[in-house]
Amino acid sequence: MLNFSYVNPVKVVFGKGQISRLRELIPMNAKILITYGGGSIKKNGVYTQVKDALAGHHWLEFGGIEPNPKYETCMQVVEMVKREKIDFLLSVGGGSVLDGTKFIAAAAKYEGGEPWDILEKGAEVKDAVKIGCVMTLPATGSESNSLAVISRNSTQQKLAYYSEKSFPQFCILDPETTMSLSERQVANGIVDTFVHVSEQYMTYPVNTPLQDRMAEGIYLTLIEETPKVKADPMNYEVRANLMWCATWGLNGWIAQGCVQDWLTHMIGHEITALTGTDHGRTLALVLPAVWSYLRESKKEKLLQYAQRIWGITGNDSNQVIDEAISRTKAFFRQAGITATKAEYGVTDEVCRKIAEIAETRNPRWGERQNITGKDVLAILDLCD
Amino acid sequence: MLNFSYVNPVKVVFGKGQISRLRELIPMNAKILITYGGGSIKKNGVYTQVKDALAGHHWLEFGGIEPNPKYETCMQVVEMVKREKIDFLLSVGGGSVLDGTKFIAAAAKYEGGEPWDILEKGAEVKDAVKIGCVMTLPATGSESNSLAVISRNSTQQKLAYYSEKSFPQFCILDPETTMSLSERQVANGIVDTFVHVSEQYMTYPVNTPLQDRMAEGIYLTLIEETPKVKADPMNYEVRANLMWCATWGLNGWIAQGCVQDWLTHMIGHEITALTGTDHGRTLALVLPAVWSYLRESKKEKLLQYAQRIWGITGNDSNQVIDEAISRTKAFFRQAGITATKAEYGVTDEVCRKIAEIAETRNPRWGERQNITGKDVLAILDLCD
Repeated sequence: MLNFSYVNPVKVVFGKGQISRLRELIPMNAKILITYGGGSIKKNGVYTQVKDALAGHHWLEFGGIEPNPKYETCMQVVEMVKREKIDFLLSVGGGSVLDGTKFIAAAAKYEGGEPWDILEKGAEVKDAVKIGCVMTLPATGSESNSLAVISRNSTQQKLAYYSEKSFPQFCILDPETTMSLSERQVANGIVDTFVHVSEQYMTYPVNTPLQDRMAEGIYLTLIEETPKVKADPMNYEVRANLMWCATWGLNGWIAQGCVQDWLTHMIGHEITALTGTDHGRTLALVLPAVWSYLRESKKEKLLQYAQRIWGITGNDSNQVIDEAISRTKAFFRQAGITATKAEYGVTDEVCRKIAEIAETRNPRWGERQNITGKDVLAILDLCD
Repeated sequence: MLNFSYVNPVKVVFGKGQISRLRELIPMNAKILITYGGGSIKKNGVYTQVKDALAGHHWLEFGGIEPNPKYETCMQVVEMVKREKIDFLLSVGGGSVLDGTKFIAAAAKYEGGEPWDILEKGAEVKDAVKIGCVMTLPATGSESNSLAVISRNSTQQKLAYYSEKSFPQFCILDPETTMSLSERQVANGIVDTFVHVSEQYMTYPVNTPLQDRMAEGIYLTLIEETPKVKADPMNYEVRANLMWCATWGLNGWIAQGCVQDWLTHMIGHEITALTGTDHGRTLALVLPAVWSYLRESKKEKLLQYAQRIWGITGNDSNQVIDEAISRTKAFFRQAGITATKAEYGVTDEVCRKIAEIAETRNPRWGERQNITGKDVLAILDLCD
């Protein structure tokens, strides 16, 4: 196990009817800005629940944080936060709204010049407006981490940052809010969670048996619950279990002491930046190819995964790995993600651009920080 | 899954050489009291590491917090904390030192009269002195929870309390500090962790598949690592994995959304209070009897445990459960706990006293809060 130091200070408030607890979770004297996305919270009753809970509080709202939240949009909200002297940001929606809100919170207090530097140059976040969230889409784990991913229209970039200042103070997870999600959103969320686990698990081993078992527990639960949510979308228990998996997929704990990869995400982010493809779909496309291409370097964990998750064993390790990858792809299809590279617009031109980006990275991408543009081209070539 | 609300604010600092980080973890202007036990930290080099890290800080020390920390001892230290205006308590040692330190921290700020009321009457802890810890004995999970168990000589009581004010601010977990533990301490710690997991897992099911898998992950890791620590006590990786299991056994996360029991602990605490038997040993004695006696009420989970942990299946559920219990007892023996009820001094008189205590409890003990004195006698009768 590697040395580590970690604290996750997010209070998790989980279950039916918990949105009403906003009343006690946000100080009465706070000046709140509620941030949300395209308005689905107005259709599914979440907006009304939030409003009811905050009766008596002082709040404003900003609706319109888009999927893959844009720097340009966030900077508009930063102006509003400063102008209105907002001291609490309440994100209501999915991971995109929350990621945008985290960045707004940091950018509003940033004094080093252009806040884009936080993303592009790793400029330190020294302070941020306080954040809370009502999470309505189980996928990103953003509700329980200090990470945000922001895109910039003008440069077609999609970049991540993290900072201890960007943990929400609390997250409210009411599985009932997820029942109105589209099948597409549910599928994306399941795959996103699955791939988060993979980025922290499918790496060269450093003797972390408990972390491995916890990661495998998330895989197994996703695999068990996915057919249930397809068959019975209004089942509260299933929704609750999927929601809890998403939080654990990226609350940081399964990664502590382990080697991490994030190569699939790096390639996936570039595909989204260049083609607009949903994040979850880029991951479903890229992950199997990464595993196949890096099968030697990830061999021990791929074999462990094959055996513990799918019950596949055998003397021919290549065959075992191929079968495990094939089962993984089948699981993504079962979750509902079936489109191909061609349909996502991942042309040769797009592949070349991503390979060029990989070449500029210092350190390079991957768990061993050794992924070249040529490797990226080979991986993208393996994508179906 | 049940509704829940939880935050664990403890910063975990894990690995070789991390005691030196005390320097940055405790503010320079704090007036520190270092608390420890019988002096083993002076033999194994931990005391020197702590002293070196705190060169430049202002600190005093109190050595002599005993196993099953005594109220009487804690109250002596409370006087010292008040007299010396201590504003940071640093616990260096195992769970007993830390539990005692947590109680000292709460009692020193308690203004409601006799601090024993915190334990006996559930009086609220409104404030506490700040705490940090260097944990040297993987067992209790105290380093990462808000719980403390305190004994009182004069009344032969052993009682627990918890309070959000009693979380340590940080815990330093250096597996190297555990290499000088006696075989007895190692065995007690493994069984303590195993039984903590059981109190949160072996209950009637409420559809918590991810929490179940995480708990099972701790069981499986303990079972894999125990023979290794016996065969190769100086193996850092094995010590690291056992230490991390102990933290996860009782940092609160595997219990969220689940039903909890704690019956084995309640009976075990009384055995310790009446006979002085090590905590871990009382648990090894009582757990198999609790499972056997409550096999109907715990049936689903016992069968799941039998299958997932020991690979035992079959049509005769009683036989499967008997075999799973038998494997569990064998595991405790393998860990190093072999003594019997008679050797621990658990006489008929002791059993009667514990049954009487069970009768006075309101609510009653157990996951269904229905355990009578008669049940306790039957359970103790089943102990080997």
